[in-house]
Amino acid sequence: MEPQSDAVGAFIPGPRATLEPLGRGVLDGVRLAVKDLFDVAGVPTTCGNPDWARTHPPAVATAPAVVALLQAGAALVGKTKTVELAFGLSGENIWHGTPRNPRAPDRFPGGSSCGSAAAAAAGLADLALGSDTGGSVRIPASYCGLYGIRPTLGAISLAGTMPMAPGLDTPGWFAATIDLFARTGDVLLPGEVGRLDGPLLRLEEAWVNARTDVAGVLSGLLERLAPRLGPALPVSLIPEGIATLYRGYRAIQGQEVWATHGAWIGTATPTFGPGVADRFAAAAKVTAAEAAAGRALRRQLQARLHPLLAGGAVLAYPTSPCAAPLLAATAREQEEVREATVGVTAIAGLAGLPEVTLPVATVAVPGGRAPVGLSLVAGPGRDRALLALARDVAALLGAP
Amino acid sequence: MEPQSDAVGAFIPGPRATLEPLGRGVLDGVRLAVKDLFDVAGVPTTCGNPDWARTHPPAVATAPAVVALLQAGAALVGKTKTVELAFGLSGENIWHGTPRNPRAPDRFPGGSSCGSAAAAAAGLADLALGSDTGGSVRIPASYCGLYGIRPTLGAISLAGTMPMAPGLDTPGWFAATIDLFARTGDVLLPGEVGRLDGPLLRLEEAWVNARTDVAGVLSGLLERLAPRLGPALPVSLIPEGIATLYRGYRAIQGQEVWATHGAWIGTATPTFGPGVADRFAAAAKVTAAEAAAGRALRRQLQARLHPLLAGGAVLAYPTSPCAAPLLAATAREQEEVREATVGVTAIAGLAGLPEVTLPVATVAVPGGRAPVGLSLVAGPGRDRALLALARDVAALLGAP
Repeated sequence: MEPQSDAVGAFIPGPRATLEPLGRGVLDGVRLAVKDLFDVAGVPTTCGNPDWARTHPPAVATAPAVVALLQAGAALVGKTKTVELAFGLSGENIWHGTPRNPRAPDRFPGGSSCGSAAAAAAGLADLALGSDTGGSVRIPASYCGLYGIRPTLGAISLAGTMPMAPGLDTPGWFAATIDLFARTGDVLLPGEVGRLDGPLLRLEEAWVNARTDVAGVLSGLLERLAPRLGPALPVSLIPEGIATLYRGYRAIQGQEVWATHGAWIGTATPTFGPGVADRFAAAAKVTAAEAAAGRALRRQLQARLHPLLAGGAVLAYPTSPCAAPLLAATAREQEEVREATVGVTAIAGLAGLPEVTLPVATVAVPGGRAPVGLSLVAGPGRDRALLALARDVAALLGAP
Repeated sequence: MEPQSDAVGAFIPGPRATLEPLGRGVLDGVRLAVKDLFDVAGVPTTCGNPDWARTHPPAVATAPAVVALLQAGAALVGKTKTVELAFGLSGENIWHGTPRNPRAPDRFPGGSSCGSAAAAAAGLADLALGSDTGGSVRIPASYCGLYGIRPTLGAISLAGTMPMAPGLDTPGWFAATIDLFARTGDVLLPGEVGRLDGPLLRLEEAWVNARTDVAGVLSGLLERLAPRLGPALPVSLIPEGIATLYRGYRAIQGQEVWATHGAWIGTATPTFGPGVADRFAAAAKVTAAEAAAGRALRRQLQARLHPLLAGGAVLAYPTSPCAAPLLAATAREQEEVREATVGVTAIAGLAGLPEVTLPVATVAVPGGRAPVGLSLVAGPGRDRALLALARDVAALLGAP
């Protein structure tokens, strides 16, 4: 399959890594883009940073998740840009260039799986593989108007991918249409489909955390889900507060990131873009006590959410508290967005729950409208039932 | 065992029905009082109404629930007063006399299992059997400062008892101490004990429905359960409103009550006390459409609560919205209390869930203090786990 043009700068610059399908199946004819954090045999895995590429040999094997998609009929059309070492949510990459957000060109695409989101949103790929530690699929999906999934922690192999924070890392994927999005779960996710019948729990802390316009438009949509899931029931499940979740997440992630990459950073002395460099510096300073407190919080959150979702209940909330920030946003504005955003993405992240974001709304921004996603979160292991529910919800809401 | 005096008027007037134990077991030495809705072989079951007693022969067999308690070592010390045909929550009985509330002598004892509650609260019995259709164990337990349980619908046989509204009726029991209260579940309830670990869900509609003083004192206690169940999480699960639950409950109950007793009332033309007569008259007027709407609401409530509680979550709320009404309360005041009360007791009632009320608080009333109970509600069939949890909660709160 011949690579197409790259009008939005989604792909890694240079020769395009492509692969023909390895079989025929439910993904026949699907153009697949893969975040450059997944290994493709014979190709460098840059992880978005030139020093990483310089100090690591080309991959010797293709990541099993990629192989599974190729075996199901997909063709690889290229490897996509990522925030350096996946450490950032805006989608900025000073080395490869920040991909354009096809749905809001003066705004960030979201990251770290920025190139995968841009490729899917621009129609340069039908299906795009990404990874999600603290929102790296969910946030760009929300910003670019795509379906996106963070699966149950551990449900899909991360072999052949760059680890970031292994206790939080998952793969994930993007698509512009629900049919392909849900069908991809048949390829990658194990087990029975099952069914989620609710109740639909409106997690109040996440709605209050969102901007009024985002909460307003998405809240109105919840009412239309009543025929499938019953009325949306307001619940408050995070008495610690979203800011506490952010701090807990940040401590666990920081400790794990430094355990994963600290030695390489010390040896290779890589150069990072400014935001990424700051985040690694902060990761190095996380104390054992902070990480232990984060893990205690994580256990509490799991002990609370897992039993509550065991019977088929579904949490609903805005995926991101706001539409994509402007490319012109200051570092301080970006940091404020990041804290509010990660406080909510940390719910499923810390609890290890599957989360699907659906491109069902837009909000007014200067010069037009920008997408925001609605997230549905289910109990651990209910990924395929969640994708089946997403089909029904998309139909009820008239989404693509 | 010689019957004791009856200082609070708990027992049916006349010769006391007593039985020696039928075996030895965990209830050795326990004095048992039984609501006069349960058959004891050879004794009339008055159901609190002289016309009922006049038109029904003495029982030919003892109710299996009573037999089970006797076989476990308990001795029957008497049959206790009930609101006529169990149709009322105040505990009033104009024929047999209203039992006194030992904990608040100028107030109602609560009903319909008024005599059982009075006997247990006055120390005339250690364990008292009652029945609960719309709160007839839970409310007198709350008013008299006792432990009380409404088990999962259908968990314990109602053979040998007067049916009232068969789709809502359950037996239940009272005790003044948690140990005997929980131990009785080992005798009457089938299945494994299991364990409930939360989360603890603070059902907001029921708290808002309670008087400020009741909500205040019980709310403070919830915080002390955190070591066992985690923080109390505010949830709103009744978007229809408590008043709608009351109406739905009333329609189902009315239709079933009339189906059960309408023919006898037409034939025997019994005389009822004024409140009871009014309630039967209202039951006769329930339309099929009202009952169908109540049943639809019931199914929605079950579809919502059963999955939410499947994993071990527990609902918490005030058992009664206020302490026992004054004996001097007007009929209108009593009716207002009834509506607010039944709107909440209907939650477990309609959903078929086990509910335990714990005597953990009192509120100030003119001349002293009166008891109010804290209810814990679990998923269907989790009765023994709920009783085990009640043990832990009682210990945490320093309850008897």
